[in-house]
Amino acid sequence: MSPRRVAFDGPLVFRDPQVEMSHGAGGKATRRLVEGLLVPAFGGPLLDALDDAAVLEVNGCRLALTTDSFVIRPLRFPGGSIGDLAVNGTVNDLAVSGAAPLALLVTLVLEAGLPGSVLAEEVGALAAAARRAGVQVIGGDTKVVEHGKADGLYITTTGVGSIDPRVRCSPHAVQPGDRILLSGHIGDHGIAVLLARADIDLDAAELRSDTRAIWPMVRALLDAAAPSVRWMRDPTRGGVATALTELARDADVGVALFEDTLPVRDEVRGACELLGLDVLHIANEGQFLAVVAADAADAAVSAVRSVAGGESAVLVGEVREGPAGVVIAANAYGGSRLVDMLVGDPLPRIC
Amino acid sequence: MSPRRVAFDGPLVFRDPQVEMSHGAGGKATRRLVEGLLVPAFGGPLLDALDDAAVLEVNGCRLALTTDSFVIRPLRFPGGSIGDLAVNGTVNDLAVSGAAPLALLVTLVLEAGLPGSVLAEEVGALAAAARRAGVQVIGGDTKVVEHGKADGLYITTTGVGSIDPRVRCSPHAVQPGDRILLSGHIGDHGIAVLLARADIDLDAAELRSDTRAIWPMVRALLDAAAPSVRWMRDPTRGGVATALTELARDADVGVALFEDTLPVRDEVRGACELLGLDVLHIANEGQFLAVVAADAADAAVSAVRSVAGGESAVLVGEVREGPAGVVIAANAYGGSRLVDMLVGDPLPRIC
Repeated sequence: MSPRRVAFDGPLVFRDPQVEMSHGAGGKATRRLVEGLLVPAFGGPLLDALDDAAVLEVNGCRLALTTDSFVIRPLRFPGGSIGDLAVNGTVNDLAVSGAAPLALLVTLVLEAGLPGSVLAEEVGALAAAARRAGVQVIGGDTKVVEHGKADGLYITTTGVGSIDPRVRCSPHAVQPGDRILLSGHIGDHGIAVLLARADIDLDAAELRSDTRAIWPMVRALLDAAAPSVRWMRDPTRGGVATALTELARDADVGVALFEDTLPVRDEVRGACELLGLDVLHIANEGQFLAVVAADAADAAVSAVRSVAGGESAVLVGEVREGPAGVVIAANAYGGSRLVDMLVGDPLPRIC
Repeated sequence: MSPRRVAFDGPLVFRDPQVEMSHGAGGKATRRLVEGLLVPAFGGPLLDALDDAAVLEVNGCRLALTTDSFVIRPLRFPGGSIGDLAVNGTVNDLAVSGAAPLALLVTLVLEAGLPGSVLAEEVGALAAAARRAGVQVIGGDTKVVEHGKADGLYITTTGVGSIDPRVRCSPHAVQPGDRILLSGHIGDHGIAVLLARADIDLDAAELRSDTRAIWPMVRALLDAAAPSVRWMRDPTRGGVATALTELARDADVGVALFEDTLPVRDEVRGACELLGLDVLHIANEGQFLAVVAADAADAAVSAVRSVAGGESAVLVGEVREGPAGVVIAANAYGGSRLVDMLVGDPLPRIC
């Protein structure tokens, strides 16, 4: 289940009278749905260990498996489209599980009336993104629903990857003193998609989604520092705030985030201020967070910076003894604030 | 891609101006979409070998992988619901690839406003069907779209199975003289769903969808006659007609179907006559077809009949030298007719 299970204070129960947009936003309502309904129904040893991807052992080879549905609106946006995103989003879940992407399965749910040219474009985008990510499409399915019963095109991709044998990631491996690495600028995807919607007009013409496959960056990190890499996550729905809150809870540690170190473009910062959004809640589609032992942190940053897309990699925080389960963001003026998971859904359907 | 690739007369190109319901029906328009757009875009050695499931070799173990989206309307129907179907449809694609189901990944696309109780019921149906099929849910994803942008609930399932090492199925193994086994009554699913839609009222109160996992029947068949089993297929969208037409084309043989031997319930026959439908085009969700060497055919039928759900298994036809690529149905009065793939979509959204 994504977003992922987190340690929690008490048993959650899903008793919501109806599904709301917030159940898909990756924040607290999603957690109630996942923890309170899906995990109890499907629970088992494999699901309980679930993170970004499930792990299946086959004759001594460890495979990672992950699946995601993509319902982004609009279908095309600056920097990408639903076809790119459906490949990159899924191979990135493999990457942060330490798995080299091997194969992809794709299903399409099409709305009757979708222009054939739009379908052909998105199939082309899927194929091109798969080639760039070095992953082969090995199967799929197509369904069509009546006009008005979908929004052009929904895509579900399932990725299979081979887990790098050097990977030793687990929240339990995270130690106070470890450093938190961020691969680059945050908020680009969510804000670019927001601005692509006709109802918002801000002066940020240059802003593009960061949708890309992050495996080359992750592989460089593992090459440089595999035994010292404790945890990885791609901060998509719910943003950096949700990813780090889950880390704090899963690892039962405190997380200190140094806000001034966060790479944020001016257009993103401006849009967030204008719209009252916290950039830490905005989705990213081409970045990852990693917890790295302190003595390997500088080498880790250098390794990620050496790869295209990772030029802005930086250390943005550190793991503390406590307060356990909590993320605290500190600014340059000595102030600090509690960072919480996303509540509600300020930016629906951004993936 | 499902329905599966077939040998074809010339290169197909997808130039349709827009997506129509028929592109999802499993017949000729689907073939044009799959052959004319998806396979050329995604084509590669693994996809080109694609059948009901893709095969991935991992350290000497052969895994089958398959994915399907389910958009059936209504969500619940006599004999089952979208939750059952989403498990059974996918594990059955594994089964006819000769694979014991191992694990399942599930994504949900939810329409805002869906009652929480309906969601909980379908999650329960998914979980119960997975338990019955002996398969574990190991991961998934949830997305929510605005009210009016989906039809309650769409489910995508991806199945992973372990291919039985005794399986030697391939269209190229099919020989003239081989027999065609059918596991039971046809048309139950499609007609039950049709009748569950409010706009049709026929006297067939007892009719229920046949949705079930067929692996126990397939395993019994393999136990009894594995080296003699040449080909298997579950006749879902497009029905028995489409499955056998694809067999005839893929294997470059003729297929003779003895119509009088087909198990068809009176309610199904009556509904088909009244509505002008050919039962050979109606979808099934708990049956399979197998080509078996003639000398093993009786043992094969006995084996399938010994398993719950397979009591009506019967030989319904045989493979002929020719006319190659063609299915001919013969009736008891000496008449015969050409059986073709489905054209158009008489029964939209039955899976």
